[in-house]
Amino acid sequence: MKAVFAGSFDPPTLGHLDIIARAAPLFSELRVLVGRNLAKEPLLPVEERVALLARLAADAGLANVVIEAWDGLVAEYAKAKGCDALLRSIRNMGEIPYEQMMATYNRRLLGGVETVFLFARPEFVDISSSAVRELVAWKRLPRGIVPELVEKELEKRYGPLLQD
Amino acid sequence: MKAVFAGSFDPPTLGHLDIIARAAPLFSELRVLVGRNLAKEPLLPVEERVALLARLAADAGLANVVIEAWDGLVAEYAKAKGCDALLRSIRNMGEIPYEQMMATYNRRLLGGVETVFLFARPEFVDISSSAVRELVAWKRLPRGIVPELVEKELEKRYGPLLQD
Amino acid sequence: MKAVFAGSFDPPTLGHLDIIARAAPLFSELRVLVGRNLAKEPLLPVEERVALLARLAADAGLANVVIEAWDGLVAEYAKAKGCDALLRSIRNMGEIPYEQMMATYNRRLLGGVETVFLFARPEFVDISSSAVRELVAWKRLPRGIVPELVEKELEKRYGPLLQD
Amino acid sequence: MKAVFAGSFDPPTLGHLDIIARAAPLFSELRVLVGRNLAKEPLLPVEERVALLARLAADAGLANVVIEAWDGLVAEYAKAKGCDALLRSIRNMGEIPYEQMMATYNRRLLGGVETVFLFARPEFVDISSSAVRELVAWKRLPRGIVPELVEKELEKRYGPLLQD
Amino acid sequence: MKAVFAGSFDPPTLGHLDIIARAAPLFSELRVLVGRNLAKEPLLPVEERVALLARLAADAGLANVVIEAWDGLVAEYAKAKGCDALLRSIRNMGEIPYEQMMATYNRRLLGGVETVFLFARPEFVDISSSAVRELVAWKRLPRGIVPELVEKELEKRYGPLLQD
Amino acid sequence: MKAVFAGSFDPPTLGHLDIIARAAPLFSELRVLVGRNLAKEPLLPVEERVALLARLAADAGLANVVIEAWDGLVAEYAKAKGCDALLRSIRNMGEIPYEQMMATYNRRLLGGVETVFLFARPEFVDISSSAVRELVAWKRLPRGIVPELVEKELEKRYGPLLQD
Repeated sequence: MKAVFAGSFDPPTLGHLDIIARAAPLFSELRVLVGRNLAKEPLLPVEERVALLARLAADAGLANVVIEAWDGLVAEYAKAKGCDALLRSIRNMGEIPYEQMMATYNRRLLGGVETVFLFARPEFVDISSSAVRELVAWKRLPRGIVPELVEKELEKRYGPLLQD
Repeated sequence: MKAVFAGSFDPPTLGHLDIIARAAPLFSELRVLVGRNLAKEPLLPVEERVALLARLAADAGLANVVIEAWDGLVAEYAKAKGCDALLRSIRNMGEIPYEQMMATYNRRLLGGVETVFLFARPEFVDISSSAVRELVAWKRLPRGIVPELVEKELEKRYGPLLQD
Repeated sequence: MKAVFAGSFDPPTLGHLDIIARAAPLFSELRVLVGRNLAKEPLLPVEERVALLARLAADAGLANVVIEAWDGLVAEYAKAKGCDALLRSIRNMGEIPYEQMMATYNRRLLGGVETVFLFARPEFVDISSSAVRELVAWKRLPRGIVPELVEKELEKRYGPLLQD
Repeated sequence: MKAVFAGSFDPPTLGHLDIIARAAPLFSELRVLVGRNLAKEPLLPVEERVALLARLAADAGLANVVIEAWDGLVAEYAKAKGCDALLRSIRNMGEIPYEQMMATYNRRLLGGVETVFLFARPEFVDISSSAVRELVAWKRLPRGIVPELVEKELEKRYGPLLQD
Repeated sequence: MKAVFAGSFDPPTLGHLDIIARAAPLFSELRVLVGRNLAKEPLLPVEERVALLARLAADAGLANVVIEAWDGLVAEYAKAKGCDALLRSIRNMGEIPYEQMMATYNRRLLGGVETVFLFARPEFVDISSSAVRELVAWKRLPRGIVPELVEKELEKRYGPLLQD
Repeated sequence: MKAVFAGSFDPPTLGHLDIIARAAPLFSELRVLVGRNLAKEPLLPVEERVALLARLAADAGLANVVIEAWDGLVAEYAKAKGCDALLRSIRNMGEIPYEQMMATYNRRLLGGVETVFLFARPEFVDISSSAVRELVAWKRLPRGIVPELVEKELEKRYGPLLQD
């Protein structure tokens, strides 16, 4: 089974990396799609997010993970690349109605593609890119939220981030 | 990826069959485990449930689906058979805490096995084996809840079931 | 529209009475069904619950409310009495999956009957008959949980109940 | 009982139509209020939405359904027209807190009007006007989401919509 | 234990006041922080909200309650003032994921501060400042939502508000 | 503020210990009540649970923590000991309705006592005594679920427990 894991990854977090590392062995290929997310000013440009995820996957020895930027319908990409499933992560009950709806639409669009889910590891359920964006606006970033590589990139762009 | 889909399937419903049919193409092998569920008096004996599921899978042309009875830890079975993942179905938000906890334990037991989830198809979210058991106690069973094969077996054992 | 409001009402609470009082003006007739609920030892016998509800409805001037004991399928009663809808009360999110499932089955059974819902009034969301049963076991019953009439009946049977 | 079913219906979906069709027989009159929803650019102008709903209700033989545009407080409309209740549809647990709050306010405003609820039919829980708006932006619209009449109107305005 | 209760309080409601009154006896000092909330046009300026809350606390005889405006990180304020805990109120299940995440971050920022929770009293779960803002926009404000003092201030600024 | 943290603690978990350790500094005294929980066969007798918790609290240097067995109403104990609040832990959304109801009753019983809540630390949300009881029945107990001391006691009674 080839799978697609799409998101904006702005920035990539330890939660994202954990899902990718846990999912990679389950699929013959895992394609990580980085959305441009034009609606809001990104913390990191899409090319940087792709580069960071590619290095993180390589550092973790995940040979079957491919990282790409993509702005279209995810189901369309999946079809074009012969992928069998979309992969999504769930952190809490509150995310269910949206995910349930998206899974239904993706099964109905373009001949249909299934969505499979992994739960976020308990220690990562409170990590989200949007929380990181808010923390960075406060010039803070506790350890254990983003990979060190991402932390460095964020500090390069936004100056020193207090660790607590 | 080889996966295990465990449950008591007492009786098998259209919801179960839909998950099996949607999941089978995603895995190289899908092993469906039928628990004996000793705690309560079953509607159908475990051997009958295995036989029904086997016939339903065959009728649906699902060649990579294996049905077996099993009473031990599911993670233990998964390890013994070289399966990479447990498959679970989610119908609504209320099921999340239990599923999240079970996925955590199964990742920690026996060297660890991941759990992947599919959402029940919307038209099947209200179908459950326990509801069927209650309906049969009332001598009723509306169409569109269990496969016809299961309906016949239930009527053989419990007499005519009103369809509305 | 004629409606059926079924429950075990063991004992009737201010929450039940509020639903009945709010619903009565919405329907041409509101039939309150009191289940025998044989599975557990009741706090009050079913005849007593019927009598209490009848007096409470009369005291509240609810002329179109009928109280009856019933042990069968509620949908069957609704059909027999020409009722158009079942009425249910919702107190919190956690009750949704069960209510959603029951509404689906009742729409499919016996030619179908719709279920309409009212939310419990905020000040009554924490009131339940099962909580009252537990409180009575502790010989306590704060005011503002059951109608005074019910309180008296409970004290007649179970002795004085501390009000805090 | 006369009831009001208010929404923006931009566009009307099969989910809306199902609620209207199931609710109409329960009330002596069902008034469907179409909000102008000025905050966002509508997919269809309010007059068009009113016209579509009127034709859909007529096609379904729902003689006691009235469709009107309205921008004020819904409770005010209900009072003016002598309606006894507001009708709302619930699709999932996540909608409860908002609906519970609105029902409370509407019971307290303008002398009070009750809100009654129907659950969306399971096969329609994932249908929403906002999802349709997003799909149309992608030039897609799977079958089974909006009535054919609405589909035609959308294609007239937005060009061909792919059906998967 | 000294605690911090932060919010925008625009305007203060009976729900806020109830939490403050119930929490004050539990702490040696309760510091209420009023955020400027620059993102949206406030109903009342922050100085007015501080003044109202101070008068409400005084009128209620809550001698250990301090009201202040604050725009920084709440955890930073807590540290600076030697407070041991943040206080939050929970009204319903839907608020849990956000509160759980914030509590985790506040435990990790600035050396860590715990967050303790009180449930809103049932009769206040449907009260929110945002609902009041919407009601005021409609020139309405039912009794039992904000303290009388706040009601008067709102009427001074926005003209007469209908009480139902 | 003096607080009461009541539960059955059968057995004590790392989750319980974490709540006790985080709460102890917030209160002048924290009284941990161990219920006898007669309804089911306990994994450990109540005296053993009290002894284990006492040793765990001592080992953690929590000087203001008192452990006691108690079978009565918790609110009654709180009143008798001059405690201001009950302490409860919340792991997920699904626990809210029950906790909200219990908090309401405890505020109304015996003159009233408030309930304050802490969220379980994310890495402990999936830990529960009932899960431990089930694991022990399978002769398993992964590390990181109960304190080492409890693990040893369980092994003394139930024989070796596999760690994965």
